[in-house]
Amino acid sequence: MIDPREIREAQVRLAGRIKRTPIFSSQLLNDYLGHEFFFKAECLQSVGAFKARGALNMLTKALSSPDHGIQRVVANSSGNHAQAVAWAAREAGLPATILMPKSVSPVKAQATRGYGAEVILGEDRFWVDREVHRLSTEPGTLWLPPYDHPDIIAGQGTAVAEALEQVADLDVIAAPCGGGGLLAGSLLAVKNAGSHAQIVGAEPQAANDAAQSLRAGRICGLAEAPSTLADGAMTLRVGEHNFPLLQQLDGFYEVSEKDIVYWYQWLNHLLKLQVEPTSAMTMSAVLQHVKRSVLPQRILIVLSGGNVDAGMRRKLWAQDQLVNQPSAERE
Amino acid sequence: MIDPREIREAQVRLAGRIKRTPIFSSQLLNDYLGHEFFFKAECLQSVGAFKARGALNMLTKALSSPDHGIQRVVANSSGNHAQAVAWAAREAGLPATILMPKSVSPVKAQATRGYGAEVILGEDRFWVDREVHRLSTEPGTLWLPPYDHPDIIAGQGTAVAEALEQVADLDVIAAPCGGGGLLAGSLLAVKNAGSHAQIVGAEPQAANDAAQSLRAGRICGLAEAPSTLADGAMTLRVGEHNFPLLQQLDGFYEVSEKDIVYWYQWLNHLLKLQVEPTSAMTMSAVLQHVKRSVLPQRILIVLSGGNVDAGMRRKLWAQDQLVNQPSAERE
Repeated sequence: MIDPREIREAQVRLAGRIKRTPIFSSQLLNDYLGHEFFFKAECLQSVGAFKARGALNMLTKALSSPDHGIQRVVANSSGNHAQAVAWAAREAGLPATILMPKSVSPVKAQATRGYGAEVILGEDRFWVDREVHRLSTEPGTLWLPPYDHPDIIAGQGTAVAEALEQVADLDVIAAPCGGGGLLAGSLLAVKNAGSHAQIVGAEPQAANDAAQSLRAGRICGLAEAPSTLADGAMTLRVGEHNFPLLQQLDGFYEVSEKDIVYWYQWLNHLLKLQVEPTSAMTMSAVLQHVKRSVLPQRILIVLSGGNVDAGMRRKLWAQDQLVNQPSAERE
Repeated sequence: MIDPREIREAQVRLAGRIKRTPIFSSQLLNDYLGHEFFFKAECLQSVGAFKARGALNMLTKALSSPDHGIQRVVANSSGNHAQAVAWAAREAGLPATILMPKSVSPVKAQATRGYGAEVILGEDRFWVDREVHRLSTEPGTLWLPPYDHPDIIAGQGTAVAEALEQVADLDVIAAPCGGGGLLAGSLLAVKNAGSHAQIVGAEPQAANDAAQSLRAGRICGLAEAPSTLADGAMTLRVGEHNFPLLQQLDGFYEVSEKDIVYWYQWLNHLLKLQVEPTSAMTMSAVLQHVKRSVLPQRILIVLSGGNVDAGMRRKLWAQDQLVNQPSAERE
């Protein structure tokens, strides 16, 4: 099990190199729902997602070893982790090679190249995952995995560690679940801070490997790529380092595609921030969690990222969900 | 002509009641374009637009007169001004009646009601404008017009006044032109601060009444409602109080619908804020203005608002403009 004090070390390591992202709120939303919501805007983080934290933490820690011998960085990702690794490598003055399936959206490949990385497009996700393992055995090469590593988990946890300094007396903290890096890190951050906040995870019904795994008590993977609007939560299986921490969560909820769209539209409308569907999904989970709470709760939502390509936006705005007020009674 | 010191008075009047909105930037954009851009995020202002400033300034000033006799507020608007007046009236503890054409998007009418205002839907814009004049003659009624009033202009100008405190040594300040309230106020703010920044206005080619007016040296109105994606700049004619100030601008540029979409997508993508097409349009104007500048310029863009309904979003994302990097060479 990862020592919660790793969070404090990651915070020290990242200080001044990672943005201290602001907290947003919406009075209208609080009035509608009867709770007090605080939104940690990691969509305003470098690369537009919390992923910058984990990548920079793992890389910086590795480089702090006197005999590291690291000459380049590699990663496999079609999402925000790709840009995070490209960015972190540039920060460290190292070349980066990012492997992506050729189906990746051109704007994501372009953004990754924009941070100075070499992008190699492969046939599919399986090729990409095999190839990164091969490259990682080459001399002087450091592989930064997307979630299944203690230093990645501790880095991601600094988002919630920061939020705990920014907002007092939180009752509930909620974050989305892909591979489980953000949620596992958030749990460690709460332990490290001695906070009594409950931690709640959100996953698409359509990609519910973590929910299945939590029910079974062991990691169950999906056989094939799921179809969900929450593209940051399409991971086929959670990490080995992440799962035991996920088992300690206070709540874990599956969210329908309909509710993902609904909260995507409302959060984007009310907060005036670019919020990914994966982040918006978290609203539905937390409302399931506090459904029976008579007392108003102080709730932190981690807005994990803000990268949405044009095609995805067309899907997300195909139908207007803003014509009815937000309601806690949708489930 | 309005005294520039009205800006300072408006700032004092609004202090603590209006959000001091943050400044955002994008390193990627600066690298691409070779200038330093500062974005004043009025999309994060109350009601999601700078319009809150003018409405609250005019109302507060009117209420400060000992014999004001004001018992309710009225306004005519299908845009952000409607919400601004509803919000300002609620802040002042007064009832508000907002007249809107029945073609207004349901989410805007809903948001206006959300601030506690009574919304009356009329046949069209012409009915709405006639009716507000009739209502404004009723006893105890204060009409807050959308742009053509010194106190509205001075209120809007506080956005740039604030930005001048936040960013040193600005070379250029750019804002969109609807009725001319924001631009006229920005000009006053620059005068009041003794800044040497140039001021540049942006208008859709498809709704170029201000450009026509500036060329003719007198106010020319459009005969019918224009069709443009920049829905905050659809005003048929600029205000009588605004026009002499617009004539003092350092540059005024018309922007194609194509460029409005282009910069809408890029600003939303890079800044991770909700930016209206009317605000994004300003990028194209300022690039026309600095086209021949050899030296890098420090440029303030007023992100005037962030309210975009679902139907408009579908139009704005119908084609992907993010597959090519932002370029200053588009004109």
